[in-house]
Amino acid sequence: MNNPFWSPALAELEPYVPGEQPRGNRLIKLNTNENPYPPSTRAMEALADPQLADALRRYPDPESTELCATIAAQEGLAPEQVFVGNGSDEVLAHTFYSFFRRGADEPLLYPEITYSFYPVYCQLYGIPHRSPALREDFSIAVEDYAGPAAGVILPNPNAPTGRYLALEQIERLLELQPERVVAVDEAYIEFGGESAAGLIGRYPNLLVIRTLSKSHALAGLRLGYALGQPHLVEGLQRTKNSFNSYPIDSIAQRMAAAAIADTAWLRDTRERVIATRERVARELEALDFEVVPSMANFLLARPRAIGAESLYLQLRERQILVRYFNKPRLSDYLRISIGTDSEMDALLAACREIQGTADNSQTR
Amino acid sequence: MNNPFWSPALAELEPYVPGEQPRGNRLIKLNTNENPYPPSTRAMEALADPQLADALRRYPDPESTELCATIAAQEGLAPEQVFVGNGSDEVLAHTFYSFFRRGADEPLLYPEITYSFYPVYCQLYGIPHRSPALREDFSIAVEDYAGPAAGVILPNPNAPTGRYLALEQIERLLELQPERVVAVDEAYIEFGGESAAGLIGRYPNLLVIRTLSKSHALAGLRLGYALGQPHLVEGLQRTKNSFNSYPIDSIAQRMAAAAIADTAWLRDTRERVIATRERVARELEALDFEVVPSMANFLLARPRAIGAESLYLQLRERQILVRYFNKPRLSDYLRISIGTDSEMDALLAACREIQGTADNSQTR
Repeated sequence: MNNPFWSPALAELEPYVPGEQPRGNRLIKLNTNENPYPPSTRAMEALADPQLADALRRYPDPESTELCATIAAQEGLAPEQVFVGNGSDEVLAHTFYSFFRRGADEPLLYPEITYSFYPVYCQLYGIPHRSPALREDFSIAVEDYAGPAAGVILPNPNAPTGRYLALEQIERLLELQPERVVAVDEAYIEFGGESAAGLIGRYPNLLVIRTLSKSHALAGLRLGYALGQPHLVEGLQRTKNSFNSYPIDSIAQRMAAAAIADTAWLRDTRERVIATRERVARELEALDFEVVPSMANFLLARPRAIGAESLYLQLRERQILVRYFNKPRLSDYLRISIGTDSEMDALLAACREIQGTADNSQTR
Repeated sequence: MNNPFWSPALAELEPYVPGEQPRGNRLIKLNTNENPYPPSTRAMEALADPQLADALRRYPDPESTELCATIAAQEGLAPEQVFVGNGSDEVLAHTFYSFFRRGADEPLLYPEITYSFYPVYCQLYGIPHRSPALREDFSIAVEDYAGPAAGVILPNPNAPTGRYLALEQIERLLELQPERVVAVDEAYIEFGGESAAGLIGRYPNLLVIRTLSKSHALAGLRLGYALGQPHLVEGLQRTKNSFNSYPIDSIAQRMAAAAIADTAWLRDTRERVIATRERVARELEALDFEVVPSMANFLLARPRAIGAESLYLQLRERQILVRYFNKPRLSDYLRISIGTDSEMDALLAACREIQGTADNSQTR
């Protein structure tokens, strides 16, 4: 029942449920795709700026000018092709508001299995949607994204599958919907995929969305951004300046710029994460898991020897947290973030032990 | 003309225009009501936490548990009576969405002259509104806020007038609209007014909104909060969790909690600001200004000897920035933030000099 003080329909919202953030540090936390390595020391050094107290006293630069310039330089784009937000979730919310509210006959298109915040934004802003099924192997069939639509949004690599769509397929999507925004949510692109940002000059309908949460080990800083032609960035700015003029605080503007400029850190870290992912994928297969090919910093894997929910619970008892989705097509799988090598060894050892126990109990 | 990729009506939004944030430090900046004193050293010390890099690697606490507990303890409320956001602007946006979207027959009520972001939120969410006039002396006539309405919102003290509404008048508003949310935006309450927070237990429709931007000299940190009965906080949380699960970064959560706990800093600083305000008000009157009685950290003042816009421009030439609003009823006034005593002395000297010149030119 609606609370009498609430706006009608507020009670019908089904908010996003983020992965658990347990207090304390005793757990091995492989459930929210955080980077296992500490952020760039250059980012941390930005905190030592003696001007910081005075900067905090004043309002931050509402346009995040230097941060946008840093991102633009990194991407070979102009500053007016960059929009920054308080985490990519805020960038996504403004994207839905700015481009996808088009009425009942034009549903937004996104994959059947994808980031579970997308349907929440649709509810928030009253956007109808249609969700083409994934193929049996969890790949996206781009032909299904034709027809009247408010736009298209998809993560690449997709989450929580980890599957990557090659750039030719992204171009096919852009051509199928030339009059609508196609938003490519590249939260995980740094872990082996090729960004669509290079296509921005050729496609006025392409919006690329990124975050520092995974690639730059700064989930706690809340910094996301969008790349696109200036007319799309202007659309996002109109919404942002009608919602919150100063979304990025003075510390986040400085730390994010320093982190993005530290390209050596990114290169080293991504290589370590990728190497660990590939090793763990092989070892999980050796433990009789089906492992979905991943270009992200997580693996979606189906244990054949034990139920996924049971394995999730038993890992939890052993202080290892992974993500279990009690949803169609996913309920036999676990999503496992890539941690350090020693964290992953602990995970593999626990799986081995649990499956050994499970086998024993079956044969008893 | 609408951009073909934009949602319909995006082009009709008239975004908020924040006060200018000039780069560099040569100006005396009295235009955006920042606190002239540096923030609490306890807040700055939170940056030295050796756990910070690891905290930043992970997602922040989505519920800002410790920060909410600190605010609640300070206010004598329960943590479930506290909602935090990325600046009070974000809290306001969620307030408009959560409580004020009620259709064409129930306009939101707010004063004719008030925070100029309110009409922008109304446009963003399609909320009709009605704006009762202020009295000749800029005071709010609460009897005008009766009748069918989506709710009421007003700053207390009001901005940019600085006028304060006594708590009996706030109670009258709460009783005039017992079935609708009455939001009291207390961005400036620490500079001499009495908060309505003490009324929360008796009024299920009262929402009090605050910010650390002015009172705590942390405009650059972006931290605002709302206080109200748990059912109102839950309404805001539903919206927040449908928009951005993690709006407050790990640094802001720590610094804000430390700043709020430093009550000695707040007591000292507010007293200095109030003393300077009262002195400057008297000196401006001696310079033939009409000064609106203020309980905020700014003064709205009308120079009788010179046009307000002309004075604004001439102050600017002298590297002193105040706020001029080219709007009905305000175009003869300047809004002057309270800076340090020496900044205000520079302002007064400049006014004296400019008016002297103006007088000379009239008599020549």
